[in-house]
Amino acid sequence: MKFKAKINVMPRQEILDPQGKAVSLGLKNLGISTIENVRIGKHIHLEVEADSSVKARKQVEIACEKLLANLIMEDYAFEVNMLD
Amino acid sequence: MKFKAKINVMPRQEILDPQGKAVSLGLKNLGISTIENVRIGKHIHLEVEADSSVKARKQVEIACEKLLANLIMEDYAFEVNMLD
Repeated sequence: MKFKAKINVMPRQEILDPQGKAVSLGLKNLGISTIENVRIGKHIHLEVEADSSVKARKQVEIACEKLLANLIMEDYAFEVNMLD
Repeated sequence: MKFKAKINVMPRQEILDPQGKAVSLGLKNLGISTIENVRIGKHIHLEVEADSSVKARKQVEIACEKLLANLIMEDYAFEVNMLD
């Protein structure tokens, strides 16, 4: 069975996010002053071949821990759905 | 009122995604061969000050169109929720 995973990897709350700060500043320069606290992470889509949703989730978890997220600086969250 | 927006910016379907390809390869090298079709975009959190949810959505839309997404290569989607 094939599953689709959607993963969010975000900088941890206590970590500075220079990219987010730059975007905040950019928005102010564009005249959009109502937006603040911008934080930028990664959004990842991928497909997993697995026997069950549980096994698919396990695969995605391993991928996040080993490659997709830097656990010292980032948190991750994901959802897995069966592909039709 | 304060609103929190969660935005996803993804490379368009017909656009090559070299970062995704690199991650696919990296996962294979780590022995995870069940994962494919990796595509990587941005996940953005921000806070908007606005009178209503409709106005907050409008602000976020302007920010996406003007700065956060490159509409030639990327699509965006977002949700806006009131902050408590």
